[in-house]
Amino acid sequence: MATHMAAALKNAGHQIVEVFSPSLQNAALLAYHVRAEAVDDLEQLKSTDLFLIAVKDDAIEETAARLAKYQTPVVHTSGATSLAVLEKYISGAGVFYPLQTFSKIREVDFKTVPLCIEANSAELKQMLMELASTISNQVYEVNSNQRRTLHLAAVFACNFPNYLYHIAQGLLGDAKLDFNLLRPLIMETAAKVQDNLPNEVQTGPAVRGDEQTMREHLKLLEPDQYLQQVYRLLSEGIGKMNKT
Amino acid sequence: MATHMAAALKNAGHQIVEVFSPSLQNAALLAYHVRAEAVDDLEQLKSTDLFLIAVKDDAIEETAARLAKYQTPVVHTSGATSLAVLEKYISGAGVFYPLQTFSKIREVDFKTVPLCIEANSAELKQMLMELASTISNQVYEVNSNQRRTLHLAAVFACNFPNYLYHIAQGLLGDAKLDFNLLRPLIMETAAKVQDNLPNEVQTGPAVRGDEQTMREHLKLLEPDQYLQQVYRLLSEGIGKMNKT
Repeated sequence: MATHMAAALKNAGHQIVEVFSPSLQNAALLAYHVRAEAVDDLEQLKSTDLFLIAVKDDAIEETAARLAKYQTPVVHTSGATSLAVLEKYISGAGVFYPLQTFSKIREVDFKTVPLCIEANSAELKQMLMELASTISNQVYEVNSNQRRTLHLAAVFACNFPNYLYHIAQGLLGDAKLDFNLLRPLIMETAAKVQDNLPNEVQTGPAVRGDEQTMREHLKLLEPDQYLQQVYRLLSEGIGKMNKT
Repeated sequence: MATHMAAALKNAGHQIVEVFSPSLQNAALLAYHVRAEAVDDLEQLKSTDLFLIAVKDDAIEETAARLAKYQTPVVHTSGATSLAVLEKYISGAGVFYPLQTFSKIREVDFKTVPLCIEANSAELKQMLMELASTISNQVYEVNSNQRRTLHLAAVFACNFPNYLYHIAQGLLGDAKLDFNLLRPLIMETAAKVQDNLPNEVQTGPAVRGDEQTMREHLKLLEPDQYLQQVYRLLSEGIGKMNKT
């Protein structure tokens, strides 16, 4: 994520002064792409307008504590971490959270990535909103409580569906079928909710109340009690949906 | 689905002779688009090379019985129905199953839709494979047992993810957040598995073993025991994934 965001900032004309990592080699990898300096010493950073922290959630607090002495605004990029964690140490504290799933192997058009902004002053908020709008067309103000829920919702919208794709792939493998068979369906399922709400386009035996097909599916899943449980639980929920 | 397939066949240069429905009005709606005749009497159909049945699964058998007297090959288009249901009545029996989720509001490029073919003779199989290849670039031979599993896998790859999108939307609504925030994430999650396998791109707290975030998520879900159950069950499965 740091790589994608740094590249987007650089491409939008911002200067990235330094890239810090405890591993100088890792810092250099990112710094090279955005023509910044790589450093591994947090104690002697150069002057800048903003520190942007993109570290593991449980390293945010420690990093903030060490940045406190610079009197420079600090933002973190975490969906699961409240602003308060920074505010303990930093007077100008904010959040700059890109809601997307990033991977090293795929390019992402940052302009389409929703950026969720929070700040502990109107001035910093203004600065972050302006900065965000230079790299994304979708900038939202989202407070810490909302962001916690958003992060949870992203688990349901991204991590869990990907796991269900994995289950589907396993079922196909058992039947000597190629995962390519399902790829267009997966894509279209996601595309459908780009212009519709999910309950408007729900399909399948559970929403039709097609008990016979569901019984046959459960029978096919008999060798795997876990998959039966997943099938039952999700079908139960779908059965109670309001199809509008 | 009938509408999309009929249009694809017509566009590929095939002639659709008649469109039957017990409701002449429904027949006419489809027939109009493909310049065919609309009929509501199954007893006096015109001569043709192939009957294509696109009815509800539980009406396939009865329809096949009534088509038997024409001595014309019959295919059904159902993922969940075995070839044997047709073979009871029809000497040239086959399956022509498009694996995609269709909706009246969205155009689908039929060329990208996987078509799963089965037939009870080499001759009919040859005919169906050729017919299929005129409307789709992805033609597969799939027997009845495989197709049952494929249909089940499609529930995991399409119906269940769509329901999880619905859950995510509900969580956002509770926090007064817009579903638009999640749409790019949903799209990218599906796009990622177009060139990768799901286990290669699984993300989130469960695959990281991030117990603290999972505890916080479960706490947020406390008002809804059902959602807690879904979260626990899917996270448990993800925790056991082989990330390669």
